[in-house]
Amino acid sequence: MTKEPKKLNELFHDTLKDIYYAEKKILTALPKMAKAAQSDDLRAAFKKHEAETEGQVERLERVFEIIGKKAEGKTCEAILGIVEEGQEIMKEYKGSPALDAGLLAGAQAVEHYEISRYGTLKTWADELGLKDAVSLLEETLEEEKKTDVTLTKIAETVVNQQAAA
Amino acid sequence: MTKEPKKLNELFHDTLKDIYYAEKKILTALPKMAKAAQSDDLRAAFKKHEAETEGQVERLERVFEIIGKKAEGKTCEAILGIVEEGQEIMKEYKGSPALDAGLLAGAQAVEHYEISRYGTLKTWADELGLKDAVSLLEETLEEEKKTDVTLTKIAETVVNQQAAA
Repeated sequence: MTKEPKKLNELFHDTLKDIYYAEKKILTALPKMAKAAQSDDLRAAFKKHEAETEGQVERLERVFEIIGKKAEGKTCEAILGIVEEGQEIMKEYKGSPALDAGLLAGAQAVEHYEISRYGTLKTWADELGLKDAVSLLEETLEEEKKTDVTLTKIAETVVNQQAAA
Repeated sequence: MTKEPKKLNELFHDTLKDIYYAEKKILTALPKMAKAAQSDDLRAAFKKHEAETEGQVERLERVFEIIGKKAEGKTCEAILGIVEEGQEIMKEYKGSPALDAGLLAGAQAVEHYEISRYGTLKTWADELGLKDAVSLLEETLEEEKKTDVTLTKIAETVVNQQAAA
């Protein structure tokens, strides 16, 4: 029996599982990052993003429903690597004025991974004619972009001035 | 003897080593992706980006010079995870009309990792008063953003039409 080549709907489903796993991982990382943050602005940004991430997980569950699949994750090596790097920085820069700058760098790497995944999924949902999924993915994509802009602003002001001091 | 807390200049150096390792890893991945690509546009984009990446490695070497350090990499778990996911897709979607869509998704995850790192490094170089480094990092950042836009255009046209067919 020859295996049928996998199609775009399967790639969409696989990638949905990848980002679902990633979001759940991020939900466990954000409270640690908030706890480690020295700047009040940064801690507040992490806490706000934790609440947003919960909403993003729910949206993903609705996309799974739309394609008639069970919501489940699939190990995402990329997010594991990004989060691991962030944890190394937390350890190596503990007690350093550069800690917040390092936390911000890690958080922005996470945001950009998500931006790339949601952008890809949105394009594919459109190709597959999944209109409701497009709206849900677009909503999260815009949230992630906004979070990245917020983090850039914090990086350009408070945190780096602390670190260079 | 108490260890001095690490500062922003050290975080800058550590992150420079991280992206230097990542760029070298990308240089080994791009020819495989170009070989696997089914669409001529996508193959051409990968080849063009390979040439650009060589220039980006050289720019990083100039930044190392500016801070008086030897150009060397430091294992970057994030890029290893992203590249590994791309290789899984190449294997699982070999011979599938969705292969190019998967390759594009992997390439865009790589671009976004780089965009986050170069954005961070540029901000820090600015804080540290390294004007020449800011220009070099800015140049690469703009190249990466342009590549991401090109890949999005390819994703929205040729490739996904093939995959949904």
